Amino acid sequence: MSDHPGPDGILQLGMGFWASKTLLSAIELELFTELAKHAEGLDALKHRLGLHERGARDFLDALVALGMLEREDGVYRNTAATELFLDKAKPSYIGGILEMANHRLYPFWGGLTDALRTGNPQNETRHGQEPLFETLYADPARLKEFLAAMSGVSRGANMAIARAFPWSDCSTFADIGTAQGDLAVQIAEANEHLTGIGFDLPVVEPIFEDYVSRSPAADRLSFQGGDFFEGGLPNADVLLMGHILHDWGLDDKRLLIGKAYDALPEGGALVVYESVIDDDRRENAFGLLMSLNMLIETEHGFDFTGADCRSWMTDAGFRDSRVEHLVGPDSMVIGVK
Amino acid sequence: MSDHPGPDGILQLGMGFWASKTLLSAIELELFTELAKHAEGLDALKHRLGLHERGARDFLDALVALGMLEREDGVYRNTAATELFLDKAKPSYIGGILEMANHRLYPFWGGLTDALRTGNPQNETRHGQEPLFETLYADPARLKEFLAAMSGVSRGANMAIARAFPWSDCSTFADIGTAQGDLAVQIAEANEHLTGIGFDLPVVEPIFEDYVSRSPAADRLSFQGGDFFEGGLPNADVLLMGHILHDWGLDDKRLLIGKAYDALPEGGALVVYESVIDDDRRENAFGLLMSLNMLIETEHGFDFTGADCRSWMTDAGFRDSRVEHLVGPDSMVIGVK
Repeated sequence: MSDHPGPDGILQLGMGFWASKTLLSAIELELFTELAKHAEGLDALKHRLGLHERGARDFLDALVALGMLEREDGVYRNTAATELFLDKAKPSYIGGILEMANHRLYPFWGGLTDALRTGNPQNETRHGQEPLFETLYADPARLKEFLAAMSGVSRGANMAIARAFPWSDCSTFADIGTAQGDLAVQIAEANEHLTGIGFDLPVVEPIFEDYVSRSPAADRLSFQGGDFFEGGLPNADVLLMGHILHDWGLDDKRLLIGKAYDALPEGGALVVYESVIDDDRRENAFGLLMSLNMLIETEHGFDFTGADCRSWMTDAGFRDSRVEHLVGPDSMVIGVK
Repeated sequence: MSDHPGPDGILQLGMGFWASKTLLSAIELELFTELAKHAEGLDALKHRLGLHERGARDFLDALVALGMLEREDGVYRNTAATELFLDKAKPSYIGGILEMANHRLYPFWGGLTDALRTGNPQNETRHGQEPLFETLYADPARLKEFLAAMSGVSRGANMAIARAFPWSDCSTFADIGTAQGDLAVQIAEANEHLTGIGFDLPVVEPIFEDYVSRSPAADRLSFQGGDFFEGGLPNADVLLMGHILHDWGLDDKRLLIGKAYDALPEGGALVVYESVIDDDRRENAFGLLMSLNMLIETEHGFDFTGADCRSWMTDAGFRDSRVEHLVGPDSMVIGVK
């Protein structure tokens, strides 16, 4: 049998939800936030987190083996990455998206087979509730969690866009579907000549204002309330749409790209950024899985390749377009009017 | 920020259940079994598997990106590994454990945080039913699935034990908790001088006989019914316990090791094999996570290090012991009387 491939890769992937859920439970239990206060041994951690004797040591040592904790002489501490990104007390916290994954997406993905057979979402809407965004935006607490989650998952790409785009040629930008406004903050902080608008539903305004007020660039950023399916988009040299287009079906994607074209000046640019799938659809597993997440979460949404997005931009009238990689699975598609 | 660690590793692990569940749904839909008949394009696969238009292409391309399928000119086919291990029509199928993971463990692991806080199982027993093994062994169809699942996950290690153990010095063996009998089959097929017993609850006998009858070594293998917590174990030169001890608490582990000692001749050996955790509890993530799976699935079970098991063997009277790695996360602990 020695020439045959082994089953290990299959078993590791199939049981991969064990490792994933272990990290999600650690975030739910605020383990990393506790350890950011100070490193601790097993007994103190059990007490502070309310862990039962039985699974505590396996849980912590599994996180060591998964590279999420360090352990020396029986004392557990965060790794450099978990200290920076999973301590709730730090502005660099990205755990919001994983909190949402833990209590919403994990159970909803249990319905993946049904989703594949029916094409229907498997989230709250499955039980006859309102569609996702109506539900989220109607509940201020859940909305704030959702928007913080979006900031968490986007921050690395936001920082890359703030540096990689040729901002020196522009003076204004508007971030469409701005949520907390982290992308606007990163761009404005990295480019002192820019003035920016965060555009989102009016209900988002206090959440945006609260988040942006902590930035040294706050005086160059303002909120504009609106619904991007009603009326036009704000006018600016650059319009950005991060993790927006994948929520919608093809007709709505084209509609939004067309509205961006209409709102831009000649020479202006639309920046679409997401986990853009590679054109050959065989490399960016995260982007392809994100598209399945849109199947689970939305009525018509799907992710897309750079070539897909460029063709929609061309059809909308953009004279030039290109794809630039940002960080991890994320790329931006830039369309120039 | 360039000196700081990135968040990608955290996000990939936290969202790892997406990739895992995608493979589990593919097994549920018998995608690999269909593709083993012949390679197919998107439209034919959609029709044959009953997939809705919306998610089908993303699903298949995600499996390409995850290394579980190949795609050339729009035609999907199995990889060498998925062709061998995930085609239900082949005896090498290991998907049983992943079928069980899909419809039992995935939802049960949704209760991990509760399990960590309470120490209580999160499987069927949570809803007041009988403990796991009573439930499984009372339902012939589920029992057969469970036992096939155990064979699937064990086969690589079974084959390694059949070759790596010094069988030339022995003439008889008994596999304790034999299930379908795959370990007994592998050992007997690789060592023609050996005669073996498969020991398990009487209800397992027809499942064992059915499985073993297909082996060329069937005439050297026999079934012995019994309950390893009642009465003694069969007498043989070598006793094997694969994935047995981790199901039970410490007292029962010691009881079973003691019974094995009593049943062996001087110079005989007990072989315990599982996903044995490395002694420093920081390398074998799968073994540590398997221990959390025992938290989810059993009242008192847990996985253990080689040093743990050797100390229990020493306490039971074994004069010598050692740990030998098998394949992947699995090792065997050998105790010599």
